[in-house]
Amino acid sequence: MTTNNQPPRLPALDPATVAATSRSGYPSEELRVPLAGRSRRALGDALGLVTFGVNLTELAPGAWSSQRHWHTRQDEFIYVLEGEVTLITNAGEQVLTPGMCAGFPAGVADGHHLVNRGSVPARFLEVGDRLPGDVGHYSEVDLAARSGRAPYAFTRRDGSAY
Amino acid sequence: MTTNNQPPRLPALDPATVAATSRSGYPSEELRVPLAGRSRRALGDALGLVTFGVNLTELAPGAWSSQRHWHTRQDEFIYVLEGEVTLITNAGEQVLTPGMCAGFPAGVADGHHLVNRGSVPARFLEVGDRLPGDVGHYSEVDLAARSGRAPYAFTRRDGSAY
Repeated sequence: MTTNNQPPRLPALDPATVAATSRSGYPSEELRVPLAGRSRRALGDALGLVTFGVNLTELAPGAWSSQRHWHTRQDEFIYVLEGEVTLITNAGEQVLTPGMCAGFPAGVADGHHLVNRGSVPARFLEVGDRLPGDVGHYSEVDLAARSGRAPYAFTRRDGSAY
Repeated sequence: MTTNNQPPRLPALDPATVAATSRSGYPSEELRVPLAGRSRRALGDALGLVTFGVNLTELAPGAWSSQRHWHTRQDEFIYVLEGEVTLITNAGEQVLTPGMCAGFPAGVADGHHLVNRGSVPARFLEVGDRLPGDVGHYSEVDLAARSGRAPYAFTRRDGSAY
């Protein structure tokens, strides 16, 4: 092997050098609570990428990736790196282990999210494109997300203010 | 932990169930030879994603990811999963180990590729968007790639036929 000990330099990076955030843009505390144990590092932004986002996301035991939702225009992809996540869709639940992946094509009206029901942190990569005009529909809460204002403007399902 | 033994079902999948291909669209044997040890599984396509591609790519010892190139419109991202890859750009070479990532924003005229100089296979995820009108410029060979015809039409740098 040719292992060296130099830290990566751009256009490469070590994700550990990217600040993690637990911020959620959801417009009420009730909506944000299940995400409190979610931490994301925006790798794509740190690398100067524009047309899609890449997050390295960690879920503490019990944490959710998001409220259950689907997108009208945004394709999404996740790849599990560590721990286990439970994927919840209309078809029910399935546990995804490291090396497994999932994809959520735009326009498929099947709300999805990931929940860490394990006892150790779970980590995964998540990728989503940034096409304009996307709307996020939420399956179980009175919420909608519209792109066009950064990052998303949240309303109730009928478009009214939260 | 909640580990189960069920294989994933869509919208999730096990990458091992996706066919691997060593095909290269490069228009000459000389251009293709360094890629002979490259194998890709098109995870995004298998999941029905359209707006970006996700490949799980394996490089045998000695193999290259591609000829050195950059894109006019396509953002690219890679994340190393196993083994080691040497990233080559205008700034020189650096070895990337598992958990490291790199990004290549559209329009940055710095040709890049990955070479496995290690003694074991290397595996990484690669993501690229699919915006129309992209041109791939090749740094070290007389080659250009234009999107618009699937997957890319290769010509010489001046646009003439290969």
